[in-house]
Amino acid sequence: MRDITVFSGSAHPELAAEICAHLGTPLHPVQLHRFANDCLGVQLQANCRERDVFLIQPLVPPVQEHLVELLLMIDAARGASAARTTVVMPHYAYARSDKKDAPRISIGGRLVADLLVAAGADRVLAMTLHSPQVHGFFSVPVDHLHALRELASHFRRYDLSNAVVVSPDLGNAKEAAAFARLLGVEVAMGAKQRLSDDKVTISSVIGDVRGKDVIVLDDEIARGTTVIELLDRLRERQVNSVRIACTHGLFSAGAVERLSDQPDVLEIVCTNTVPIPDVKPDGKLRVLSIAPALAEAMRRIHEGESVSALFG
Amino acid sequence: MRDITVFSGSAHPELAAEICAHLGTPLHPVQLHRFANDCLGVQLQANCRERDVFLIQPLVPPVQEHLVELLLMIDAARGASAARTTVVMPHYAYARSDKKDAPRISIGGRLVADLLVAAGADRVLAMTLHSPQVHGFFSVPVDHLHALRELASHFRRYDLSNAVVVSPDLGNAKEAAAFARLLGVEVAMGAKQRLSDDKVTISSVIGDVRGKDVIVLDDEIARGTTVIELLDRLRERQVNSVRIACTHGLFSAGAVERLSDQPDVLEIVCTNTVPIPDVKPDGKLRVLSIAPALAEAMRRIHEGESVSALFG
Amino acid sequence: MRDITVFSGSAHPELAAEICAHLGTPLHPVQLHRFANDCLGVQLQANCRERDVFLIQPLVPPVQEHLVELLLMIDAARGASAARTTVVMPHYAYARSDKKDAPRISIGGRLVADLLVAAGADRVLAMTLHSPQVHGFFSVPVDHLHALRELASHFRRYDLSNAVVVSPDLGNAKEAAAFARLLGVEVAMGAKQRLSDDKVTISSVIGDVRGKDVIVLDDEIARGTTVIELLDRLRERQVNSVRIACTHGLFSAGAVERLSDQPDVLEIVCTNTVPIPDVKPDGKLRVLSIAPALAEAMRRIHEGESVSALFG
Amino acid sequence: MRDITVFSGSAHPELAAEICAHLGTPLHPVQLHRFANDCLGVQLQANCRERDVFLIQPLVPPVQEHLVELLLMIDAARGASAARTTVVMPHYAYARSDKKDAPRISIGGRLVADLLVAAGADRVLAMTLHSPQVHGFFSVPVDHLHALRELASHFRRYDLSNAVVVSPDLGNAKEAAAFARLLGVEVAMGAKQRLSDDKVTISSVIGDVRGKDVIVLDDEIARGTTVIELLDRLRERQVNSVRIACTHGLFSAGAVERLSDQPDVLEIVCTNTVPIPDVKPDGKLRVLSIAPALAEAMRRIHEGESVSALFG
Amino acid sequence: MRDITVFSGSAHPELAAEICAHLGTPLHPVQLHRFANDCLGVQLQANCRERDVFLIQPLVPPVQEHLVELLLMIDAARGASAARTTVVMPHYAYARSDKKDAPRISIGGRLVADLLVAAGADRVLAMTLHSPQVHGFFSVPVDHLHALRELASHFRRYDLSNAVVVSPDLGNAKEAAAFARLLGVEVAMGAKQRLSDDKVTISSVIGDVRGKDVIVLDDEIARGTTVIELLDRLRERQVNSVRIACTHGLFSAGAVERLSDQPDVLEIVCTNTVPIPDVKPDGKLRVLSIAPALAEAMRRIHEGESVSALFG
Amino acid sequence: MRDITVFSGSAHPELAAEICAHLGTPLHPVQLHRFANDCLGVQLQANCRERDVFLIQPLVPPVQEHLVELLLMIDAARGASAARTTVVMPHYAYARSDKKDAPRISIGGRLVADLLVAAGADRVLAMTLHSPQVHGFFSVPVDHLHALRELASHFRRYDLSNAVVVSPDLGNAKEAAAFARLLGVEVAMGAKQRLSDDKVTISSVIGDVRGKDVIVLDDEIARGTTVIELLDRLRERQVNSVRIACTHGLFSAGAVERLSDQPDVLEIVCTNTVPIPDVKPDGKLRVLSIAPALAEAMRRIHEGESVSALFG
Repeated sequence: MRDITVFSGSAHPELAAEICAHLGTPLHPVQLHRFANDCLGVQLQANCRERDVFLIQPLVPPVQEHLVELLLMIDAARGASAARTTVVMPHYAYARSDKKDAPRISIGGRLVADLLVAAGADRVLAMTLHSPQVHGFFSVPVDHLHALRELASHFRRYDLSNAVVVSPDLGNAKEAAAFARLLGVEVAMGAKQRLSDDKVTISSVIGDVRGKDVIVLDDEIARGTTVIELLDRLRERQVNSVRIACTHGLFSAGAVERLSDQPDVLEIVCTNTVPIPDVKPDGKLRVLSIAPALAEAMRRIHEGESVSALFG
Repeated sequence: MRDITVFSGSAHPELAAEICAHLGTPLHPVQLHRFANDCLGVQLQANCRERDVFLIQPLVPPVQEHLVELLLMIDAARGASAARTTVVMPHYAYARSDKKDAPRISIGGRLVADLLVAAGADRVLAMTLHSPQVHGFFSVPVDHLHALRELASHFRRYDLSNAVVVSPDLGNAKEAAAFARLLGVEVAMGAKQRLSDDKVTISSVIGDVRGKDVIVLDDEIARGTTVIELLDRLRERQVNSVRIACTHGLFSAGAVERLSDQPDVLEIVCTNTVPIPDVKPDGKLRVLSIAPALAEAMRRIHEGESVSALFG
Repeated sequence: MRDITVFSGSAHPELAAEICAHLGTPLHPVQLHRFANDCLGVQLQANCRERDVFLIQPLVPPVQEHLVELLLMIDAARGASAARTTVVMPHYAYARSDKKDAPRISIGGRLVADLLVAAGADRVLAMTLHSPQVHGFFSVPVDHLHALRELASHFRRYDLSNAVVVSPDLGNAKEAAAFARLLGVEVAMGAKQRLSDDKVTISSVIGDVRGKDVIVLDDEIARGTTVIELLDRLRERQVNSVRIACTHGLFSAGAVERLSDQPDVLEIVCTNTVPIPDVKPDGKLRVLSIAPALAEAMRRIHEGESVSALFG
Repeated sequence: MRDITVFSGSAHPELAAEICAHLGTPLHPVQLHRFANDCLGVQLQANCRERDVFLIQPLVPPVQEHLVELLLMIDAARGASAARTTVVMPHYAYARSDKKDAPRISIGGRLVADLLVAAGADRVLAMTLHSPQVHGFFSVPVDHLHALRELASHFRRYDLSNAVVVSPDLGNAKEAAAFARLLGVEVAMGAKQRLSDDKVTISSVIGDVRGKDVIVLDDEIARGTTVIELLDRLRERQVNSVRIACTHGLFSAGAVERLSDQPDVLEIVCTNTVPIPDVKPDGKLRVLSIAPALAEAMRRIHEGESVSALFG
Repeated sequence: MRDITVFSGSAHPELAAEICAHLGTPLHPVQLHRFANDCLGVQLQANCRERDVFLIQPLVPPVQEHLVELLLMIDAARGASAARTTVVMPHYAYARSDKKDAPRISIGGRLVADLLVAAGADRVLAMTLHSPQVHGFFSVPVDHLHALRELASHFRRYDLSNAVVVSPDLGNAKEAAAFARLLGVEVAMGAKQRLSDDKVTISSVIGDVRGKDVIVLDDEIARGTTVIELLDRLRERQVNSVRIACTHGLFSAGAVERLSDQPDVLEIVCTNTVPIPDVKPDGKLRVLSIAPALAEAMRRIHEGESVSALFG
Repeated sequence: MRDITVFSGSAHPELAAEICAHLGTPLHPVQLHRFANDCLGVQLQANCRERDVFLIQPLVPPVQEHLVELLLMIDAARGASAARTTVVMPHYAYARSDKKDAPRISIGGRLVADLLVAAGADRVLAMTLHSPQVHGFFSVPVDHLHALRELASHFRRYDLSNAVVVSPDLGNAKEAAAFARLLGVEVAMGAKQRLSDDKVTISSVIGDVRGKDVIVLDDEIARGTTVIELLDRLRERQVNSVRIACTHGLFSAGAVERLSDQPDVLEIVCTNTVPIPDVKPDGKLRVLSIAPALAEAMRRIHEGESVSALFG
C-alpha cells in the first residue's frame, strides 16, 4: 500500500481540511464542473495510482447533487488505478430509508450502498448510522463510528449529579441508554402515540425526569419538531433544565433559532459531521469537532490497525 | 410461467402439506441422502423445467443441516431449469444476527441472504423477520408477511374491554403497538436495564397495566426467560390475567412447560411457522395455522397479484 | 409476459401521457416524496408483479435529481417483482461524457449506464445518443431510435430544390449526411479551429452553401452558442435562408429567444424528447412529437417484434 | 502484504496448532457461539486488518456445522478488512459430489465452492481432492497438494521388492499408478461390477497380485466396505501380505476396528487431514502428519513463492 | 416463451439443417463477415426478440475461429433481446482441458465455460463430455446427452453372443462398462503404462478378450494412435474380429484411412456430432446421426419437459 | 507489489523483447501447445505468485488464435496467483466494432473487453484505439497511449513550412487536427460520399491542399484502398508531395507494395505496434519503435506513477 491521498467533494470541505490537518497530509482538490446540460464532471487533482485514496463527502443537501458527485469521484479513482478507495461519509442521509414500510418503494439505504459499490468503493467509514442494521446493507467492509465519546466529554464539564438522558422516541432508546452509562446517569424516553393515520404525538415520558437536569439525545435533528414537542412533555413534568445533543445537526428551516428561542433550553450541542452554516459566538449552539476521531480512524485504516479497539 | 411445483425440505413437512392442501396442488417429495462422509445430497422428485418452483423450509434446529439442505435444493432447482425459484422461509433464524455489535463477527443475516441468492434463489417469502431492516439484506424481491391478523382474530373471541398489549422489550415495541391498534386496546412495554456487562434485567414496565388483562406479544419465544421475568414485573403491578402470544414458537428446553406452570398464565398462543412438537389437547398451548396465509401469498406470487394488498 | 404497465417520473410527464394515449394504456402515477433531510423516496402506484414495466424519464435538468429518482423507481420495480423493467430515456444527458480526455475523470456515460443496471434495469430505449458508441456502454439490450424520420417529414413540406443540410461540427457530420440523404439534398459542415487552449471557433464551412436554403442539423442545442457562430460563417457565404433542426431542444438560458432574434432564421425545429417550457403560438419554434415513435417502439418491445425493422 | 494471521475453526484444532508450530506463528482463537435458536456466531480473536489471513478447517462430520462455521469465519475476515483470506481445507468432503449422475440433483462440490467464494474466500489450499477436475469448480486460485510423498516416505522403510500397489476401483487408478511409480513397483486395481441397480461388487482384480505384498491405496476410507471386499478378492489370489494406505482417514462406524480385525492386514496408514479419534499405541493404525507440508505451502503462499515447485 | 428460433454457425451447417428438419422449424442463416483486419462479425438473420433462441455450433477445427464466432452469436442474440439463448454444442473440444496437471496453465474447459456465460449463454446442450465433472464447470443449466443408445442400436444388428466391449484406457472405462451393459456383453480395457516422461504405451489389456468379437469404444478419435496401439495388444490376444465405435469422429490427419487399412477392422462407427469430410459408400466408416436425439432434446427444452427422462 | 514479471504471447515477440530490453527485465517465455483436436494450451514459464504480471499481445492476424491464446494466458496468470495482471495490447483489432450499425450484430469491441475481464485481466495498456469511446467499453482501468509524439518527432526532420496533414475521412479528423497542431501546420480531410448502398467513395477534400506537401495520417492501414483513393483526389488538386503515416501498419494483401508503387508517395511511416513482415532497407517504408513508450508506461504502471503526465 502506497501513501495516503485524500480528496474532498464539495459537500463539506471545512471538515476535510480539518481532518487532513490532523493527519498531516495535504488535502488534494477536486475540480467540479457543471456542463451546459446540467451534468456533473469531476477531476481528481492528484495522482491516484496505487495510492490509498480517501474520498470525504457527507450526504447533505443538496443530497442528489452530492451523491452523484461522490459516485463520479469513486469511479474516477478506480479508473485512475487507486490501490483502494475508502469513502468517508460522516453523514449517510439515505440510511433513514432502511425498511419497506409500504409496497413498491425502494429501500434507499440499500440501493445507495449498492450504487457506491458499483461505482468502485472498496470500503466505507460512516458515523452514527440511523439504525445499526444499515451496516449490513453494504457488501464491502464498513467502519461505523459514533460520537458519544465526544458528546460525553463535553457534558462532563457540568455537574451531572441530578442529570438524566432523555431520548425523544423509542427508536433511539438503546443509543440514549449507552450515552447515559457513559455519563453515569439515568435514562428516560418519550413514547409516541399514533392519534390517527397521519398524526403522531409524544404522549408520555417513560422514566423519572421531574426536577432533573435533562440532556435530550437524538442521532440527528432536522426540523426539530419532535424535540420541541418533547419539551412540552418535559415542562409538564417540571424538569429543572434542558440541554440538547445530537450527532448530525442538519438544522433545516430555522431549527436552531426555533430551539434557541425556547427559554429553558440552555444549550444545543452537535458535531460537525455536516456543515453548520451560521454559528453565533454568543448563541446557544455548540459544535464539537469529530475531525480528530475521523482522522484517527483513517490513520488506523491506512496502517491496518484495529478501529474497533479505539472506538468500540 | 408454467404450472406451480412445490417441494418441502425436511424441516417442516406438515406445514408444507397443509399449504399444498390449501393450494390444491400436490406436494412433491425431496429425497434427502446422507453420505458416509456426512455430506448431504438432495434430489427433487418432480420435473422442474420452466416451472414456477416453491421450496418450503423454515430455518429451525438443526439450523445448519436445514440451511445446507435448502441451499442444495435451490441449486438443484436451478440446474434443473426452473423458471423461477421462490424460497418459502416461514422462520429465518439467522435474521437475529442483523448488526455488528462486536468487532470481527459476521452479520449472519446478510451472509445467509447472500448464500441463498448465490445458490440460485429468485425470491423469498418470509414471515415476521426479527427486524424490518433484514428485508434490505436480500438482493432479490422479498414478500414479508406477519401473523398479527391471525393472532388478533384469535384474541377477538375474548372480552378485550380491560385488555392491554405488553411487549417484553423496547425492540418489539412498534410491533406491539400495531397489534394493540388491531385489537383496539392500549399498549405497554418492559424496559430492560443493564445491571452489569453481562447481566440484563427487566427493570420497569412502561404504561398502565394495573388490574388489566394482559396480552404479552413477542416475535419469537425460545427459552422463555424474558417472558418469565416480565411476569414477575406484571405481578408486582397486580395485573388481572395474562395471555402470551408470539409468531415463532421455538420453545426450546421445556419452555412450554415452564410457561404453562405459571398459574396466572391462562393461554400461550403461537403459529405453526415452526414445528411444535407435542401439543397436549388439555394444555395451555394453542397453535394457529398460518398455512392459509402462506398459501394465499404463494398463489398471488404465482399469479402476479399484489401481496401487499392483502397483508399490508 | 403479462400486461404492460407504464410509469412516468417527474422529468417529463406530458410526453409520458402522450405516449400512453398512443398505446391506449393508462399512465400510472409515481408518488415522489422529499424527506426533511432532502432524500428522495418514490412509490410506484400500481401493481408491478410479473408485469412488463416501462419507466419514462429523460435525464433533463435538474439532472442529478431526475437520475436518482429514476434509480429509485427502477429499484422499486425490481423489488416489486416486475417481470421486466425497461427504462425509456428519450434524452440521456450523461452520454456526452463518453471518453477520457483528461486524466482522473470518470466516463460518466459508462458509469451512469452501470448504475442503471445495478439498480435493476433490464433494457433501455434511448433516442439520438450523442455518439453511437455509447450504445456499447450498456451491458443490457438497448434500442436506439433517432428522430431523422420525423424531422425529414417536417421539412419535406418545403421546396428543397435549393436546400443543403449543414452540421455545425465534424462530430455530427455522419448524422447530417444521413439526414441529407433522406431529404435528397447535399451536405456541408462547419470545421472548428482551436485558437488557444481554451478558445474554439468555427473557422470555415466545408461544402457549397452560397445562395442555398440552409437546414442546420445538430443532435442537441443547449445554449446555442455554436449555432449562432455558425450563422456568422453562413452569412459570410451569403446563404439564402436558414432553418435550424435538432432532436433534443434543451434551450438553456434564453437560447430560443437568442436564436429567434436572428432575422434570417426562419424556423427552429426540435422534438419533445425533453420538455419545452414556453412555446409561443406565433414564434419561430416548432416542436415535433416523437411520442408516436416511442409508443410504437414500446409496443414492439412488449410484443417481441423487431424495432430495427421499423426505425433502421 | 502484512503479517500472516492464522485462525482455526472447531473442526481440527490439533492440526492447526501443529501447523502454527511449524510456521512459528501464533494460532489465534475463534470464539464460537451457539444461540438459543441454534444459529452459530463466530468472532475472530485477533486483528485482521490488512493481514494475510489463513482459516484452517477441514470439512469433517458434522459437515454442515463445520461448513457454516467456516462461511461465517470467511465473512467475518472480509468484514474485518483482511488483505487476503485463504481457506486451508485439508479435507473437502463435498468434492465427492462432482457430477450429475441423476436428474434434479445439485453438484455439491461446485455449489460449496461457489458458497465459499460468495462468503469472501480469496484462495483455497486443498489436499487430495476426490477427482482432479474439482479444482476447476473454484473460481479463485487453488493450491492442490497430495500426500503421496508422505505416504511413500513411510513405505520405503519396508522391503518393496515384492510389492504391488492396488487401487480398490478404476476411479482412483491414476493416483495409484503415480504412487507405484514413486515406490518403483507395479500397480493393479479392482474392477467393480454392477450386479443390479443398487448393488455393486468388486468382481475382479486387474493386474498381477498373486504372492505379492500388497499396498492398497485409496484417497479416503469411511466405512471401509470397499476395502474389505477387495481383501476377499486379494485372498482368492493368495497375496502374501496387505497394508492399507489413504490420505483421508474418516473411519466412520468402527472402520478402524473392522479393518484391524482382518488378520492378514499388517498396517493401516493415513494422514491427519482429519481428526483421528482414538489411536491405540499398539494398534495397526499409523497416522502420518501432513502439517509440515501444509505449513510449508502456507509459507510459500504468504511469501509469493511457487507451491507447485515443491509439491509438483 | 415465444416461438423457437434456430441458428447455425459455420462449424456444422449440415447437422443443423438435419436437426431443423426433425423439428419442423426453419434454420435461420447467420451472416459471417471477416473484416480486412481478420476480425469476425456475425449478423443473425431473423428476429430474436422474446424468442427461444438455439445456436448450434460444435467446437471443431479451426476451434478458435468457431469459438469466437459462437461468442459473437451469443452476444448478438442477447443484444437482440432473445428471451433465452441455448448453446447447442454437440462437441466441446475444450472439455479435454479439465484439470491442472502442470503449474501456471489454464483449465480451458472451465475458462471457455465462463466465456460462454459472460457472452450471454443461458443454457447449454452438450454431448458426451470428456469427463462427467465438466458439467460442473458451467454456472448455467447443462443438458448432457450421450450417444450410447444410437451406437447400441447399431451394434444390435450383429450377433453379439461372443462380443466384448473394450475401452482403450482407464479414463473411459466407466462409459465402456455402461455401453457393455446396454449390449448385454462383458467389458475389458487397456491399461497405459508410462515408459518415460513423454512416452506412454498400452502395456496390457485387462479382462478376457481372447477369441472374442471386440467392439472398441472411445469418446472421440482424433489421430487414432491409441486405437492402433490397442489393436496390436488385441491381436497378441488373438481376438476374432474388431469393430471400432466412438461418439466424436474427429479423424484428423488421415485417421480414417489408417484405421480402415487395418485388415482385421471390420467397421468404424461414429456419429455426426462433428462434420465427417469424405465418407466413401463402400468404405468401412459408418456415420450414425444424432440429429433426432438433439432435436428431441431441443424440443423438450423448449416445451419444458424433462430431458433426463428420455436420455437418462 | 512484488517484482515485475513480463510474458509475451506468440503475436509479436520482437516487440516484447524490445520492451523488456528497455525495462531491463527478462522476458519470460510462454509455452504454446496445440492439441490434436486443435485446442490451445499455454503454460507461463515463470513463477507468478504475488508478482506484477504483464502479458504482451497485440490482436493481429490470425486474430482469433491470438485472442484465445491471450485469454488462456490471463486465466493462467490468475490461477497462478498473480498480484495483478496487466494486458499490454498495442493493437486492439476488435475496437473497430464499436457501434451497432445493423440489427442483431455484436458490438465486438465491448464483447472482447468483457471476455478479457472475465478471464481475469486487472488492467489494460492500449494504443491508438479506433475511437476514444472504446476506452469506456472496459470495466477495468485502461491506459490509452497514442503514437503522435513518435510520428511527429520523425516528421520534424523535414521542412514543414509548406506541409498540411490530411485525414482520409471525417472519423479520424480530430486525431489529424491534434497531429497538425503538434507539427504547427494546417489540417485538411477527405469526405466520403455514399454512391449506392454498398459503394462509398471519397468525393472531395476539405481544406487547402493545392501545391502542399501532404502528410496523410490514419490510425491504421490494412488494404490501403482508402489511402489510394485519397491519392487520386490529392493529385487532382496538384499537391506537391505525399508522405503517409499511421500507427498500426497492418498492411494486408501487398498493401506496402501497392502504396510504394505510387510514384508521388515519398515515404510510408508506421510504428511497430504490429509485426511488419518484410521491410526492405531501400524501400519507402519506415518503421518507428513504440517500445520505449510502452516500456516507460509499464514502468510507471508498476511504480504507481502517473501515465497521463507523460503521454497526455
